[in-house]
Amino acid sequence: MAVRFSQRMNEVRASEIREILKLTQRPEVISFAGGLPAPESFPVAELKEVTARVLDERGREALQYSPTEGYPPLRRWVADHMNETLATTVNADEVLITSGSQQGLDLSGKIFLDEGDVVLCESPTYLGAINALRAYRPRFVEVPTDDDGMLPQALDALLAREERARLVYAIPDFQNPTGRTWSLPRRQAFMEVVRRHRIPVVEDCPYGEIRFEGIPLPALKALDQDGLLIFLGTFSKIFCPGLRIGWIAAARSLVEKYVLVKQGADLQTATLAQMQVAAYVEDYDIALNVARACAIYRPRRDAMIRALEREMPAGVQFTRPSGGLFLWVELPEQVNARELLAACVERQVAFVPGGSFFPNGGHENTMRLNFSNMPEERIEEGVRRIGAVLRELLGQGEADAPLEREAVAG
Amino acid sequence: MAVRFSQRMNEVRASEIREILKLTQRPEVISFAGGLPAPESFPVAELKEVTARVLDERGREALQYSPTEGYPPLRRWVADHMNETLATTVNADEVLITSGSQQGLDLSGKIFLDEGDVVLCESPTYLGAINALRAYRPRFVEVPTDDDGMLPQALDALLAREERARLVYAIPDFQNPTGRTWSLPRRQAFMEVVRRHRIPVVEDCPYGEIRFEGIPLPALKALDQDGLLIFLGTFSKIFCPGLRIGWIAAARSLVEKYVLVKQGADLQTATLAQMQVAAYVEDYDIALNVARACAIYRPRRDAMIRALEREMPAGVQFTRPSGGLFLWVELPEQVNARELLAACVERQVAFVPGGSFFPNGGHENTMRLNFSNMPEERIEEGVRRIGAVLRELLGQGEADAPLEREAVAG
Repeated sequence: MAVRFSQRMNEVRASEIREILKLTQRPEVISFAGGLPAPESFPVAELKEVTARVLDERGREALQYSPTEGYPPLRRWVADHMNETLATTVNADEVLITSGSQQGLDLSGKIFLDEGDVVLCESPTYLGAINALRAYRPRFVEVPTDDDGMLPQALDALLAREERARLVYAIPDFQNPTGRTWSLPRRQAFMEVVRRHRIPVVEDCPYGEIRFEGIPLPALKALDQDGLLIFLGTFSKIFCPGLRIGWIAAARSLVEKYVLVKQGADLQTATLAQMQVAAYVEDYDIALNVARACAIYRPRRDAMIRALEREMPAGVQFTRPSGGLFLWVELPEQVNARELLAACVERQVAFVPGGSFFPNGGHENTMRLNFSNMPEERIEEGVRRIGAVLRELLGQGEADAPLEREAVAG
Repeated sequence: MAVRFSQRMNEVRASEIREILKLTQRPEVISFAGGLPAPESFPVAELKEVTARVLDERGREALQYSPTEGYPPLRRWVADHMNETLATTVNADEVLITSGSQQGLDLSGKIFLDEGDVVLCESPTYLGAINALRAYRPRFVEVPTDDDGMLPQALDALLAREERARLVYAIPDFQNPTGRTWSLPRRQAFMEVVRRHRIPVVEDCPYGEIRFEGIPLPALKALDQDGLLIFLGTFSKIFCPGLRIGWIAAARSLVEKYVLVKQGADLQTATLAQMQVAAYVEDYDIALNVARACAIYRPRRDAMIRALEREMPAGVQFTRPSGGLFLWVELPEQVNARELLAACVERQVAFVPGGSFFPNGGHENTMRLNFSNMPEERIEEGVRRIGAVLRELLGQGEADAPLEREAVAG
């Protein structure tokens, strides 16, 4: 008798991309593949200071077990912060602290999905959400999506057709992978559809505050009058990811269900890390962190867009996000981005092929580029290399041409 | 249309006990209900020191994302520590760092269990494992268990009968809830059965090092030649629980599957917390923490046993564990421990009724007592109060009698 695994393990598989990307972690590689915030934005000295204070003042409490719901002062701060920045009206007891917002995705699958149930999502959508939800064996239905977000009429028609629709998953701000942000009219129309069908929505908002220009828009959660919205937030992009502190904000009756399944999943999020974050936001203004991160990312985005405009051959389209960490590239139809990646890795530059972001496959001529974790000159050099490899694949010239040109210019 | 939840949510429910126990968190209550380590054993000052060092030397790395598998120096230390203390032969790449060992239980359910599959466990077994695994909708089969552990012949017969048997769950050292430890011959006989049936085993070992007397026994993992054992370890009882750092040790092919599902569940365990623990075990000898904890718990266990011998009426049986945090009481058959708890809470003393530890119910005349988190005099007073309430329920005297006796004695 051989050891048997659950059926979901046939679907939860290591991607071949992950193996390629492991090669790209060497420092000499210019990687646009990850989703890493810039480490120079992390307030290391300040965290050291508040950690000492927490351990001096409440050390034993910080190292002990604590309630599943989360550290009360942090839950209060999260509610206040959401209400100030997102126009919501959340109470502290509607907040559950999670082990990163990724955990909110896993718990959502656990709460809402039986095998064969339908999740509706943007097309494309976040790879980590596909992976988390796939463990519950749903069917993914991709909702047509344009530059302003998910198309409400298409969602309406799909909800009318799909009897087993159980959950909508959306990333309305600086979406991963496209960098797109839903317009206000689109948010309102979306909420009308959601309200009519009474379908729960997971609103994933890790990047909302990382805005370089323009005015913030209300969260979907702020437009929800029916308790259908489950908001996932995180400190990963506005503070740092290494503490793994995120949150869920939802109607109390839903939070109670999340608390039950979180108890089984990991009992609670680390007490000390919650108290560190609570002490940090008490002593410092997190808006300054956000401003610091944006000041780093904005010129990097600009550099990437300029380089793409200069280096990409005709027929290549890309988004121009107003915030976040990513932009999205559509290559000519005949180009397979997985093949492009394999060739690029040999030139020490990497990205994530876009096909992985479509739960039902296809769209292999797309790629996601991260601009937050490399300085401008490396961004320019990396895009130049991708452009050279791409032209080679398209038969538009030698891959070495730009190097020769550079040599001539030098 | 009403919001619909997954079918598992019919089984994952808030227990009525949890609601009662919330009442017992007030400081005036003598609670034997939790499983809390003694906070006076936590090395607060030392953790402050190593945290400062980590943030000074590698602050940006500590606050950044890191690989799902865990921080390499910590994985190496865990492998070495297991090999030294448990007679295993684990390599660092057979270790996955988890968000507490509770996460190891959830991930095990995800990897091994489809609805209707069978989990075999001790009778009784850890409530948190029942809750974690129940989310995957298995059928629990309780294996007859005596003072030396699970009965191997009974396990053999059940494995032969249960075609859908997928996983055995066991806590061989200072079991939660009974405090029992499996004998060495029992461990060997168990492993023969496991080997014959080629069934994966989750060995949950949070308390193994918390031994007050006698010699340590090899882990089941140390007796496994077939890669069937999945060992769950944790720093919660040998260091502190508030950082939520645990681990899985298993054959590399199994660890790879755990890594895949952990990615979906929470991406990774907190980088900083892993580096804090790694720095602590580098600078300090964790054996001293264990010795400090044991020096606190041993007299507490002694006080509880003495008090039970003195205060319990005839017909009450209880275990006398050589380590761990808990002991187990069997009351006369006519006593329902949930009713006893309700009456005890009014006298400001609490415990967990034992019925919750039997996945298929029954055994309502049992209770679990924690002895690690209260000083001796409160343990004696708490047991005295339980004895008084119990005698009252049994019609063996007035509940107030001991108070009067005390008044006379005073």
